[in-house]
Order: sequence, then C-alpha cells, then structure tokens
Amino acid sequence: MSKAYTEMTKEELLAEKKVLEERYNEFKAKGLKLDMSRGKPGTDQLDLSSALNDITDYISDGADVRNYGMLDGIPSCKKLFGDLMGVDAKNVIVGPSASLNLMFDYIGQCFTKGAGAKPWSQLDEVKFLCPVPGYDRHFTICEYYGIKMINVPMKEDGPDMDMIEDLVKDESVKGMFVVPKYQNPTGITFSDEVVERIAALKPAAKDFRIIWDNAYCVHDIVEDGDKLLNIFDVLPKYNNEDMVIEVCSTAKMTFPGAGVSALIASDNNIAQIKKRLNAEVISYDKMNQHRHVEFFKDANGVIEHMKKHAKILKPKFDIVLNHLEEELGGKGIASWFNPKGGYFISLDVMNGCAKRTGELCKEAGVVLTTVGATYPYGIDPNDSNIRIAPSYPPVDELDLAAQLLCICTKLACIEKLVG
Amino acid sequence: MSKAYTEMTKEELLAEKKVLEERYNEFKAKGLKLDMSRGKPGTDQLDLSSALNDITDYISDGADVRNYGMLDGIPSCKKLFGDLMGVDAKNVIVGPSASLNLMFDYIGQCFTKGAGAKPWSQLDEVKFLCPVPGYDRHFTICEYYGIKMINVPMKEDGPDMDMIEDLVKDESVKGMFVVPKYQNPTGITFSDEVVERIAALKPAAKDFRIIWDNAYCVHDIVEDGDKLLNIFDVLPKYNNEDMVIEVCSTAKMTFPGAGVSALIASDNNIAQIKKRLNAEVISYDKMNQHRHVEFFKDANGVIEHMKKHAKILKPKFDIVLNHLEEELGGKGIASWFNPKGGYFISLDVMNGCAKRTGELCKEAGVVLTTVGATYPYGIDPNDSNIRIAPSYPPVDELDLAAQLLCICTKLACIEKLVG
Repeated sequence: MSKAYTEMTKEELLAEKKVLEERYNEFKAKGLKLDMSRGKPGTDQLDLSSALNDITDYISDGADVRNYGMLDGIPSCKKLFGDLMGVDAKNVIVGPSASLNLMFDYIGQCFTKGAGAKPWSQLDEVKFLCPVPGYDRHFTICEYYGIKMINVPMKEDGPDMDMIEDLVKDESVKGMFVVPKYQNPTGITFSDEVVERIAALKPAAKDFRIIWDNAYCVHDIVEDGDKLLNIFDVLPKYNNEDMVIEVCSTAKMTFPGAGVSALIASDNNIAQIKKRLNAEVISYDKMNQHRHVEFFKDANGVIEHMKKHAKILKPKFDIVLNHLEEELGGKGIASWFNPKGGYFISLDVMNGCAKRTGELCKEAGVVLTTVGATYPYGIDPNDSNIRIAPSYPPVDELDLAAQLLCICTKLACIEKLVG
Repeated sequence: MSKAYTEMTKEELLAEKKVLEERYNEFKAKGLKLDMSRGKPGTDQLDLSSALNDITDYISDGADVRNYGMLDGIPSCKKLFGDLMGVDAKNVIVGPSASLNLMFDYIGQCFTKGAGAKPWSQLDEVKFLCPVPGYDRHFTICEYYGIKMINVPMKEDGPDMDMIEDLVKDESVKGMFVVPKYQNPTGITFSDEVVERIAALKPAAKDFRIIWDNAYCVHDIVEDGDKLLNIFDVLPKYNNEDMVIEVCSTAKMTFPGAGVSALIASDNNIAQIKKRLNAEVISYDKMNQHRHVEFFKDANGVIEHMKKHAKILKPKFDIVLNHLEEELGGKGIASWFNPKGGYFISLDVMNGCAKRTGELCKEAGVVLTTVGATYPYGIDPNDSNIRIAPSYPPVDELDLAAQLLCICTKLACIEKLVG
C-alpha cells in the first residue's frame, strides 16, 4: 500500500502532485461534461416503469378517478402506501408528485395554524435541528420560512442523540427534518436505538415536529439492505404519536417528474392536515395514483420493482467506491461510507479541501453537488464534505468522473499540505 | 301568463300550495338521489379526453419529461397556456393538477414573504373584497388564512366598481379573488369597462393583489360566447402589472381529477413565485403537461375541444332554464341570469327563502350547493341565492331535478308569503 499523504515529505508530495497534474490535464483535454450533482435516476431506470403508461382505465374501487373528489387520495393508493410503510391506510394522505411539496406545505401549516399551539408565524424565533451533512432541500425549506438552523453531526448510527436530547430543552427548537434510512448524503440508516431515542424525545416545545423524510424507504442496492425500525410502532409507547410526520414518494421508484407522494401521520395530524387540504386542493392527481396502484399491484410489487433499480444502481456505486478505495485508500486524506442503498456516497476530505476539490472537478468538466450544500446556509464549517450522486451518468462516464474526482481530491489535499 | 305570487290573495296562495304539495309528494315518492351541487363535468364530458391516455412518449423539446427538472413547466406547455391566455410564455408557470392549489400557495406566499411589502402574517388585519355571490373555495382560502372578507355585490357587468374603488382606500384591504368570465355562480362576464376600472385601481395598499381566477376562460356554451378583455393588456397603462395574478386550468377541459393548471403574472411576480417554488417543488407533473400539449397541439386545439363540451352542456343549461322560465317566470319570486358559458346558473329567490328551498329539495332527494356557500362565511345576508350546477347529472335526471327545484322554490316562497 502506498504511503499516506499525511506522512509524506514536502518533496514527496510535490512529486506526487506533478504526476497528478499530468493525469488531471489529460482529463481536462477530453473536454468532459459529466454531472454527478443530483440524485437523478438514469434513463435506464426510468425505462423500468414504462408499463405505467399502458394503464388507461380509470375506475378504482368503483369510482371514476378522472373527476373531482377524494381529497386524501384514492383508497387503493392509500392502502398501497399504508402496507408499504407499515401503517393503517387511514393514516395516509396521498399527495402530489413530490414529497417535497408535502413537507413545504406542512411547515407552512405550522406557521399559519400552528401544530397544536401558537402559529409559528407569531413566535419571535423558530429553530430546527439539522443533522449534518444533510439534504439541501430541507435546509432550503427552513431558510424560506426563516427557521434558524442548528447543526447536529451525523454519527455512524444516526444523528448525535445526546446533543439532540439536550437541544430540545430549548422551547424555541420546534423540529427537525431527518432522512432516517440511507440518509442523504451519508447513506447511514438510523439504528434501532436512535429511532427509539427519537421517539422518546421530550422536547420543551409541545409542538415539536419531526419530518421523517423516508425518501429511500425501499431503495436498497444490495439484497440484504438496512432495516429501519418503524417509528410509528414506537411512538405510542411514549405518547408521542403527534410528533412525527412521515413522507415518502415514488419519485425514485417510477418517474421523478411524475410520481406520487404520500404523507403518514397520527389521527390528530391527519385531521389537521385534511382541514388545510380542504382549502388547498380538490384532490391531487388521482389518475396517476390509479396508474401507480395498477402498475405495482401491492407493496410486494414495489419491493420486486426496486430490485430492478438495485441491479442498475449497484454497479454504479461500485465504480465510485472502487475508485475511492484504489486512489484514496490509506492516503489519510479522505473517508467515506459504503451504503447499502439510497442515492449517494458521502465523501469527507481533509478539512479545508472540499471546495477546492469541487473547483478542480468543475474546471475539468465534472459537476458535483455544490460543495457546502449538504450544510445549512451552504456553509460546511470544515469545508470537507462532498456529496457524490452516481445514479445519473452512464457507467462509462461515471468511471471517468469518479477517477477525476479522486485526482482532484488528491490535488486539493496536496495543495493544502504543501501550503 | 299566470298571476304573480306577490299579487295573489292568501286563499289563492294556499290553493296553489296544495297543488304544489301534491306534485312535491309525487317527486318524493320516486326516491330520487340527484346531485346539482358541484360544477363537476359529466362522464360523457370526461370521455372527450380519452385520447390523452394514448400519449405515451416522454420527450418534449428534446428533454425527458420523466425525470427531475423544469421547475416552471415544460416550455411547450408554457407556450400553450401563453397562447391561450394571450401572454408571453415567460409569464406563465405551469402548475399542479388544480389552480386552487396555485391560489392557496400564492396567498401563503403573501403571508410568509409579503407581496413587495411586509409579510401579511405580520399585519394586524388583512381584508379581501369578495364579489357576491361568489365562489365558495375562494372564501375558504380567505378563512384559512384569517383574511377578513367584505361583501361587494355583483352587478350586471361585474362587481360594484364604485364600492371597490372606495374600499381600496383602506390600506388593510389587500386584495380580492374574482372570476372575471362566466363568474361563479352568476355566469356574468366582466365588461370591458369593469376590467379597465379594475386595472386602473389605485389601492392604498401597494401590495394589493387581485387573483384573477379565469377558470372559465374558454368555456363558452354558445357559439358567440362572451369576450373578456385581457387584463394584462390593460395593466401596463396604469403601471399595475404586479397587481394581478391570473390562474386557469384544464380541469374542465380534460380531467378535473388529473388536469394541468397555470399561473400568469408579471415578470416581478413570476420571479418571486419561482423563488418559492424552488423551495416547494422540484417540478410539477411534467408527463401530464406533455400529454396535454400532445393532446391539444395548440391553443386552437383547445378552442375546438371546448366546442365538444359546449355541445353536451348547452342542452343541460337549457333544461334548467326552460323549467325556470316555465315555472317561475312572471311569478315575482325569483330571478336568474342566462349565461353564455361557465358551469352555473345563479337563481335568486325571494329574500328569506333560499335555505328553505334547499331543505325541501334535499328532503326529496336533490342536493343543491349548500345554500349560503356562495357568500363569505356561508352567510347569505338575504338568504336568496341558490347556485345550480347542471353539468353532472344525466339529462333525464337533470330534468327531474330542475322541476323539483322549481316546485320547492314556489313552496318556500308561498310559505313565506302566507307567513
């Protein structure tokens, strides 16, 4: 195994740099235009759901889904999501094409109507806890509503629960967004202990709300994927049923641009949300709900379908992970996690080197997720986290992009080390 | 012509009542279950758009509409709505399946971020002007956000503009919802003069917003339908481009439960709304947008398609109007407007008789729109307005329902007259 950069002399580093610069320039000369920035399914993944388009009937449970009505979704689709997520259909609201919309709207509801207490718009300050690195769109929702974000580091089994248990003693801390399974971007699934501790939280704010964004609930890429404890099985033990709002969607099962989302919540929360929906919508797209039910048939159909996605995704993850291991392993400048599912690989490089790595990649034609975006306000305090999204580029392009990323990481770290 | 009830003696009225009661009981014995409550298209109308389901390709302007992206809609769909509404495609945002959602979300934005001034959530009071009778779902949005509603009577050419021009001198009056064409429920189209006066308003509130709900923009039922002045052609003359947010949708062109909506606004407003959308959605359902573009081809395709709806709807309107004329004409107890399009007939009965008419209908198995719902807070101060929705019931059922409605109206009025 080659020597760690952290143990090299300046001369050794400069020699290494020269070799890397040559490789870098070779890449640059190729005039690449590769995108590893967003968790977009590849075209071959989209093709897996072509049969959705062949469903043209429109009668579901005896009702014509083309017309108005059925505010919270068609019963068959509520059942499908209920079975999939391990809850009763009555606790499911079927939503629009993106779960992001459900989350944004729910936070809006908390500001306008409150969550069992004063509307948040009437408070001087609303704070949310943000496991970091995390999902940039959660942070964007918080920023939109003027919610102050507090970083909570991700550990190997979920967010730092000691810190969370301490922070929720502050009554102005009103909630947090989490991705409990194959967390975006770390790929970590919350352990049973973490889920239990979350369910058992006793926040000072009685209207504390956890948005349980289960975006990757069935998105294993290996056969023996992670198992996430169903938080709705645990919450009643602590009388905390109202604390969690769960969302999921078919965006990464069928079509990201035309999926179906769902929200899962307690009876109380469902009743409150339906009151809002009654003012907001007449119904979400029921034909699309029906198409999805006919396409999947049942929860097991979803699981089987996801195996096809895994078959396409696993080799892509492997390409990136192999390059990381080969080029960065033992170099003392980077660490990463080998996820069993989800859409991302989270790469932590030497402090102060992530932005520079991103710049170098960009100059050579590879776009990464904006460095910093995995942190609130776009500020990674250590400038170390890079989110890699391997799903979208075709295999050959991904292979090049991953190599280039490794070269750029090494170059950025050497620059830092030699000062 | 028979004598007006208002000119009959008590004995004459009681004799008339007896005859009517016999007819009423005959109807009651039929055990009817008819619904004239909501503006739902009939099943034959839905069938007009079956070919939408045959569109299974997914490439629009070279882009794969199945995947993420294109926040404000696919360009071809923006163009379709732009052409249809007489505005530039850049001033169009293609939305979710219902324009109600666009309106609700825009008002939410005004409360969270303001409309160029202080967020409305920070104000002591926000008032909206409400042309009455009007659309209950507009009132529901206002109620949800705690907006105080002020009634403004509808006249023959639109809302009472003298009153509006006076009321907008109050800075806490922040806006109004209007249905400018085939108004819900009156069926009245705002005259050019009214549109001009609206466009020329100089409200005290600089962030005054008019939600121009053009739900029936191309929904003529006769060949020579009403022409509505395009307010976006008039606004620039008064430097009022930012005052109006227009919405429309295909709900009553294709499928109410699975249509495509659009929002039309000034450059400034579009920019503000896109900022929100960036936090709220990744994109609305682009496959459905694409299907609609392929189905309609262009704005002219929409117009041609609407003629097929008119062919189905016109006879239904005629059935109701004929019964009204035959049974209530010259009786001095009711008035109505003969609309050239839209979805409703607005019947004004003698003051204090609308609720009772609704009750009598219900007892005999015909459901009307909840009496009072056409007014803010569900309170019709005169208890006189009844909204008739003739689109959904099949012709034979509608014929019965309309007859029964006339009988009930007469009975309710006689009850009132004889005290």
